[in-house]
Amino acid sequence: MRKVKIYITLKEGVLDPQGKAVQNSLHSLEYKNVNEVRVGKYMEVMLEDTENLEEQIDKMCDQLLANPVIEDYTYTIEEVV
Amino acid sequence: MRKVKIYITLKEGVLDPQGKAVQNSLHSLEYKNVNEVRVGKYMEVMLEDTENLEEQIDKMCDQLLANPVIEDYTYTIEEVV
Repeated sequence: MRKVKIYITLKEGVLDPQGKAVQNSLHSLEYKNVNEVRVGKYMEVMLEDTENLEEQIDKMCDQLLANPVIEDYTYTIEEVV
Repeated sequence: MRKVKIYITLKEGVLDPQGKAVQNSLHSLEYKNVNEVRVGKYMEVMLEDTENLEEQIDKMCDQLLANPVIEDYTYTIEEVV
């Protein structure tokens, strides 16, 4: 069994209105030293090990989990006993 | 300047219908080896360094970024030049 941690972020240059809203809220709460907030997604996927695991994860991200037009993704794979 | 990477996850035992929906979609795409998906949030916050930075981040998470009743969070702090 493998635990895959997937981090999905907006590409640089893509506007992030959700992050901007969070930033404005932090300013309202008097955290004035916050300069920028970017919001992304984080997923933990448990799956049975298989041949070409990285290839499978790339396909899963490209097909469903991320939008490759505007998002980048990275992931780590951990062994779970 | 500091870059804080914040990872927000649902606590163990809290139902994750969004993760379940993603899992079902992956099964429909013939990724049958996927056993569980949990969806969380990932944020990158750029902020000016300050005294008690970790204390400030904890407060920001508890007040706004995470829901401490059902979510856990972890973060890493990086120096940015």
